[in-house]
Amino acid sequence: MTSAEIARQAGVSLSTVSKVVNGRADVGAETRARIEDVIRRHGYRWQKQRVTGRAALLELVFRQVRDAYAIQIINGVQQVARDNHLAVVLSELHGRHTPGRGWVEDVLARRPTGVIAVFAGLTDAQSAQLRGRDVPFVLVDPGGEPAHAAPSVGATNWNGGLAATRHLLELGHRRIAVVTGPAHSLAARARLDGYRTAMETAGVPVDPVLVRVGNFRHEDGLTHTRALLRLPDPPTAVFACNDAQAQGAYLAAAEAGLRIPADLSVVGFDDLPPARWTVPPLTTVRQPLTEMAATAATMIVTLSQGTPLPQHRVELATELVVRNSTAPPR
Amino acid sequence: MTSAEIARQAGVSLSTVSKVVNGRADVGAETRARIEDVIRRHGYRWQKQRVTGRAALLELVFRQVRDAYAIQIINGVQQVARDNHLAVVLSELHGRHTPGRGWVEDVLARRPTGVIAVFAGLTDAQSAQLRGRDVPFVLVDPGGEPAHAAPSVGATNWNGGLAATRHLLELGHRRIAVVTGPAHSLAARARLDGYRTAMETAGVPVDPVLVRVGNFRHEDGLTHTRALLRLPDPPTAVFACNDAQAQGAYLAAAEAGLRIPADLSVVGFDDLPPARWTVPPLTTVRQPLTEMAATAATMIVTLSQGTPLPQHRVELATELVVRNSTAPPR
Repeated sequence: MTSAEIARQAGVSLSTVSKVVNGRADVGAETRARIEDVIRRHGYRWQKQRVTGRAALLELVFRQVRDAYAIQIINGVQQVARDNHLAVVLSELHGRHTPGRGWVEDVLARRPTGVIAVFAGLTDAQSAQLRGRDVPFVLVDPGGEPAHAAPSVGATNWNGGLAATRHLLELGHRRIAVVTGPAHSLAARARLDGYRTAMETAGVPVDPVLVRVGNFRHEDGLTHTRALLRLPDPPTAVFACNDAQAQGAYLAAAEAGLRIPADLSVVGFDDLPPARWTVPPLTTVRQPLTEMAATAATMIVTLSQGTPLPQHRVELATELVVRNSTAPPR
Repeated sequence: MTSAEIARQAGVSLSTVSKVVNGRADVGAETRARIEDVIRRHGYRWQKQRVTGRAALLELVFRQVRDAYAIQIINGVQQVARDNHLAVVLSELHGRHTPGRGWVEDVLARRPTGVIAVFAGLTDAQSAQLRGRDVPFVLVDPGGEPAHAAPSVGATNWNGGLAATRHLLELGHRRIAVVTGPAHSLAARARLDGYRTAMETAGVPVDPVLVRVGNFRHEDGLTHTRALLRLPDPPTAVFACNDAQAQGAYLAAAEAGLRIPADLSVVGFDDLPPARWTVPPLTTVRQPLTEMAATAATMIVTLSQGTPLPQHRVELATELVVRNSTAPPR
């Protein structure tokens, strides 16, 4: 469908269509909605003529760029971008779970080859706007929602929770605490469910007092482990559900005069590079964030070439990495 | 100077000038050099007409995107970019100290508002190419070279080395080791010189066996501290010159059965966010990387508006942050 045809159907001028298509702000809301509606119903293809020599852009959008976690994802996207001569535009939503007003317009104004999101997802209207412009959209999804409307790449969180807990059980632990992530994170729930299944299949009842809900921050590992170590019957091991919380658990153990792993075993989740350099080095479940991001970028390249994806949802394997923070209980 | 005038002086067609100006690859080396030469001598201004509605791009180029260090810089640039409605294009040189062939062409092809570099610097030819197109270039310079040809933002590394060492001297340490950074880093040399001056002004001779050259990696802190602790007269304190090396020193102390800070004091440099979560929390010198990056981005905005910079070289203050890894010697 051409711009001229869209203009005719929406009853507006060609230049108004051009403004909306290019993400300009100076079009009234009602007119914009009418044009968006025509585009949504009939589709629209960018004229593929590019500005002379301009390298294509790949948008990488984070909820928040915060720690080594983001670095892993950036590195994975850069690998694929480099091989496909794409320049990466990095932006963030400053902690929001979905983008606000104006976000799609800004993105469309840059005419990207595609958008990789590291946040919860788009509204239906935002998705339709991108689809209408033929801009591929893929989620890197550490949050773990298997039923995304958009193509997405996650990790096998449940398996990871199972492997971490089995490892502690095999060492002989029975009082195993878990500090999981926030309730809105399906990844956190999957890791917790993996813990429950490992405990139950080993015939060890889950003591509800040992199940704590954190928010994936160092502070949560610290405060929950402090509280756990003050119980009349404290745990001999903590599965911290991410590396930051595990580091918080280390500090709580030190405060209580306990040595890791002799007095308390700790397992993390993520295996970010700093996990090798805690004292002692952290046993943790590796989440392949770099590979997840590279997979998402490859999906964008595939879609931008008009090729359908072989799989809409990909989950990459997690893997237990045993270092020195776990040992048999006293 | 217009494209037509450049074409006339270089004796080439207008379209050839346009290709070179826009960073296209399909122009012979000799012709390109002739056109570059005319541009260098006479200057050239982008026609400021932008593609409709396209948001302007700010290029952020790292030698390597690796750890929390890069995150601090990204966050500082994003703050200023957001306020000025600039989209940040992130790229890296994969460990090279200066960009290779084709780099400037790729950057110019995106017609950025400016370029922020976190690497050693450009070749003269590359600088001239950017200047010729009126693309501002600023260095975020943790490497510490005060005499950059381009505008640059650094930190007061010497002061930081002085403050770290004075802190240890005031606690009563005399056997103070230093694990500095690589010889090519003036920042590392400045920190070491600060150490020397603190020692000498306190009347404590510097023992050459306690001065070790690392490469700013965890491994260097580990291996050098291991060796230091095996000396007949080992140090009671280590100034590690970056946080990663300090974490390596932690591991070496643990291996030797020494407690921090009771048996060994450790000071780092950088104060990246993980420094708060080592066990014990790390005493370190804060290098304000986020503010340094924001300052560089503000310089780009200033220059892109045609305003001269008040200062060509800015150094932001470092600051000692005392946590729990330092105490009087036994």
